Amino acid sequence: MENKTKPFGCIGIVGLGLIGGSLGLDLQSLGWNVHGLVHRETTLKRAKARRLAQVVSTDAKILADCDLVIIALPLENLLRPSAELINALPESAVITDVGSVKEPVLNLWKQLHPKFVASHPMAGTNNSGVESGQLGLFRQRAWVTTPDNETDPKALEMIHQLATALESHWITANAKKHDQAVALISHLPVLISAALLRTIGKEHDKNIHELAKLLASSGFSDTTRVGGGNPELGTAMAANNTSSVLQSLSSYRESLDLIEEAILSKNWQLLNAELEQTKTIRSSFLKKKTD
Amino acid sequence: MENKTKPFGCIGIVGLGLIGGSLGLDLQSLGWNVHGLVHRETTLKRAKARRLAQVVSTDAKILADCDLVIIALPLENLLRPSAELINALPESAVITDVGSVKEPVLNLWKQLHPKFVASHPMAGTNNSGVESGQLGLFRQRAWVTTPDNETDPKALEMIHQLATALESHWITANAKKHDQAVALISHLPVLISAALLRTIGKEHDKNIHELAKLLASSGFSDTTRVGGGNPELGTAMAANNTSSVLQSLSSYRESLDLIEEAILSKNWQLLNAELEQTKTIRSSFLKKKTD
Repeated sequence: MENKTKPFGCIGIVGLGLIGGSLGLDLQSLGWNVHGLVHRETTLKRAKARRLAQVVSTDAKILADCDLVIIALPLENLLRPSAELINALPESAVITDVGSVKEPVLNLWKQLHPKFVASHPMAGTNNSGVESGQLGLFRQRAWVTTPDNETDPKALEMIHQLATALESHWITANAKKHDQAVALISHLPVLISAALLRTIGKEHDKNIHELAKLLASSGFSDTTRVGGGNPELGTAMAANNTSSVLQSLSSYRESLDLIEEAILSKNWQLLNAELEQTKTIRSSFLKKKTD
Repeated sequence: MENKTKPFGCIGIVGLGLIGGSLGLDLQSLGWNVHGLVHRETTLKRAKARRLAQVVSTDAKILADCDLVIIALPLENLLRPSAELINALPESAVITDVGSVKEPVLNLWKQLHPKFVASHPMAGTNNSGVESGQLGLFRQRAWVTTPDNETDPKALEMIHQLATALESHWITANAKKHDQAVALISHLPVLISAALLRTIGKEHDKNIHELAKLLASSGFSDTTRVGGGNPELGTAMAANNTSSVLQSLSSYRESLDLIEEAILSKNWQLLNAELEQTKTIRSSFLKKKTD
């Protein structure tokens, strides 16, 4: 790290989808040399056309000179890396990922590479794929890392510098607690929102179904956004954070029971008190956003 | 109706909150004479200052000359109208409401007034109260009426003209089917969203709770918007559409069971297929919005 403003000689990005592509654009705009590794020829063409990296290739050898490699693959691929990818990662480089679940990623990757740091940049849009990368995606968003006591402190510091350069908020957390927290605020919403869509979709009375379609407005649209999102991503979250997701679903069921019970017993005072409380909870969760 | 562009000599609006206040602004901008009846002196001052009607009063006598009276009270008050209000409604006027539940409203009000037409303009924001009325709230939104075979056809036609003047989409439906449809796309979302907030709020592990707060982003924000909204409105919906709400909750529980079962049995193919389907359902519900 001879140059303070350019700590990394060459940064490798594996996968140029929403997260990888956005990183490629940001890092180039910061003056860094980005090498992007992609799987398919068609992706390679589009990534080159969109200038997501200075060098784009389907050959993992382009990672050879990199000081830092960011693995921006879908969770399923991150957890089942090819031998070719593993062998292409320089021993001296710092390796990080962008997966939304951290415990299984950390457990696997710390065995695969001595300088692995588990990352979860909390940035997403409804888009995915090589056309979706955009500048500034990580600005003012959380960049969570989940180091354990075996994580190389210098490697962690390099990721800290990366997150800072991207203007992200730096957060470190225990991997298991991270997975439980994202189960609550990210994975559970997908499932309960999907269950809502399923309920509306299976309404068998044609008149009601058509009327529901006509009357659906912003409340429907907002509440169902994540449940009508990327199916592979939703499945991968549940498949790789299963115990935390099941725990949050079980806790959710208790809350739903309580609300249903209040309605069944026509205890409107209790229902109103619960809704007063949920209003307060939401405010407290969103308040810090503007702090 | 001597003047085609001004079918109503004077329009009374009872309650100048979000819906009533917005109606007052729109109807005045269309050149009509609006009389607003409010309950409190403080509301009267603000309604006058905001010019929500040409005449604002706490005295129901101002409705005496109106050809049309729109009762824009909260559902609870609409279903428990004061004797003073009932007595002040001109026998010859057409009366309508703006309540989000229609069967109990229609059943009550058709006994109270011979020219009652049950309406549900589907417009809402997160705001309420005398400060929240705004121009153009009903434009391109659904205006549902739920006439039955006792509804006066001329009265219905007057409401049709009103909705058309406000540039709303005119929809007529059976009151019971309307209530079942809004239970699915409006009331159920509030409850399942509130249950999500409750689940997150009751997380007892302080680290997870704090981390969830830090990491909550747009997915959390969208999915919880309606569950963190107006508690009185949510309670009133459940209290006045109880059977449809309970039916939709029961159907929702089946959907949640199926999703949980897929995760418990690690049937990722099934979960993925379900999420593919919910994505399709959402698209089909939102497509008509831009048609």
